Amino acid sequence: MTQHSAHPTSLTLLGLGAMGTALARTWLAADHTLTVWNRTPTRAAALAAEGAGVADSAAEAVAANSLIVVCLLDDASVQEALTGTDLTGKDLVNLTTSTPAQARARAEWARERGARYLDGGIMAVPPMVGVPEAGGYVFYSGSPELFEQHRKTLGVPLGTRYVGRDAGFAALHDVALLSAMYGMLAGAAHAFALIRKEDIDPASLAPLLAEWLTAMAPSVHRTADQLRSGDYTKEVVSTLAMQVAGTPTFLRTAEQQGVSPELLSPYFALMRRRLADGDGAEDLTGVIDLLVH
Amino acid sequence: MTQHSAHPTSLTLLGLGAMGTALARTWLAADHTLTVWNRTPTRAAALAAEGAGVADSAAEAVAANSLIVVCLLDDASVQEALTGTDLTGKDLVNLTTSTPAQARARAEWARERGARYLDGGIMAVPPMVGVPEAGGYVFYSGSPELFEQHRKTLGVPLGTRYVGRDAGFAALHDVALLSAMYGMLAGAAHAFALIRKEDIDPASLAPLLAEWLTAMAPSVHRTADQLRSGDYTKEVVSTLAMQVAGTPTFLRTAEQQGVSPELLSPYFALMRRRLADGDGAEDLTGVIDLLVH
Repeated sequence: MTQHSAHPTSLTLLGLGAMGTALARTWLAADHTLTVWNRTPTRAAALAAEGAGVADSAAEAVAANSLIVVCLLDDASVQEALTGTDLTGKDLVNLTTSTPAQARARAEWARERGARYLDGGIMAVPPMVGVPEAGGYVFYSGSPELFEQHRKTLGVPLGTRYVGRDAGFAALHDVALLSAMYGMLAGAAHAFALIRKEDIDPASLAPLLAEWLTAMAPSVHRTADQLRSGDYTKEVVSTLAMQVAGTPTFLRTAEQQGVSPELLSPYFALMRRRLADGDGAEDLTGVIDLLVH
Repeated sequence: MTQHSAHPTSLTLLGLGAMGTALARTWLAADHTLTVWNRTPTRAAALAAEGAGVADSAAEAVAANSLIVVCLLDDASVQEALTGTDLTGKDLVNLTTSTPAQARARAEWARERGARYLDGGIMAVPPMVGVPEAGGYVFYSGSPELFEQHRKTLGVPLGTRYVGRDAGFAALHDVALLSAMYGMLAGAAHAFALIRKEDIDPASLAPLLAEWLTAMAPSVHRTADQLRSGDYTKEVVSTLAMQVAGTPTFLRTAEQQGVSPELLSPYFALMRRRLADGDGAEDLTGVIDLLVH
């Protein structure tokens, strides 16, 4: 799908930070009629020159269209911007970064005000907006009717993935994937730290790291199978007992290289706890149960 | 290269654990003359039926060939097995899991006994041995002459990657890549924990996770470029300041989902420390410097 395959429609966008501005530009480029509002008006002026209608207040912006997209700093900014607007009969799409609980509360708040609600979690940074080959997308959850009615318009700036009626699920998927990414970045940081004082070019380690992480990423499918079945010994490649036995080599290497083990040791500690509690023939999946209260 | 492209040669293998046994089978399958020894002789008997010569002692096994591959439990086992053997003129290839410091000390020890030395770090589990499409390989470091002379034989069970004369570099690369993998697994564990009590199938999260981690893995190239140049603001996608501002959403979501933040918070703490110390326009690369003493 190209940006122009959506039949041009009319919509309102509240919030012109880096992400909001990038979204606005793709809708304008695809000939949509766009009304924008931003708390500080400077950014709106630039978009006016590109064809956006600029509202003087959030209430005016909301009144201009039935589809209202919100991309603000945080949930408190959403509350502040929408207070005093008339949401009756509106379709509210909230792309503001939220926790699942904030998204659920905002969905209920919108319902009480007569609006349909869809929450979005953006898996992209602004330079990826409007660049389909960059692979960015938005998780959506909440009203399936709203999503179906507006999916083409919503799909103009970024890909769309609907993950359920529960308004909190988009944020939950967003946070889950980004949390996993931070784990990977933490692991990569430890790896680069290990060679920091050696005569090894980081640029020679990088392709090996990227290749190895890419090869290991699909192991999450095995983890999911084990979680579903409850049998953590299923299709184990390297057992918990073997992996725990290997951890001293990792910690000693860190020590020898003058690298703090703080990014590795919490996971190793959970591996050891799980081994002490149970079955050494398991995979590492039991660690997940130790994290959940 | 197929397994049979190496001109069959004669070699000795000490150690018949799961990995040693898998290695032995590929050399036998490729018509190499193989002499094996294991501390407990039961495993050797099975290989004898497949054509291996079984030595009664490590000394006898070492005497049988000039190329000696060692794959034992740990460095202490290597010391124990090789004590009392005559290594003069031998080519010793040590695939035993070691720290870089252990590998360097073992290289010096071998040199003092008149042997050339190559250290190996195995990036594979036994089922990947002899299966080129599984992508397993061994990092090698130490004597480049030994590596060149025997690379075809060494390449029979697994791919070979030579990473330098410093005998510790193979172990260092091995530990670096596996450490990064544990970080990624820790991140994925946190992600699965977040949905544990929700009506979300782990098998629907898994492909999203695998795809996202695969898409993010190449970011290590940018990290390497920044480390080389010393300019951590180069080609930044999302700044340290922005990412630190986002961390409360991750921590609050974990709390709301009843998930311990222990696998995420150490990395976030380092991000905050780096931001407090310096430049919010940087990437996350400065965290690496905080890890190194």
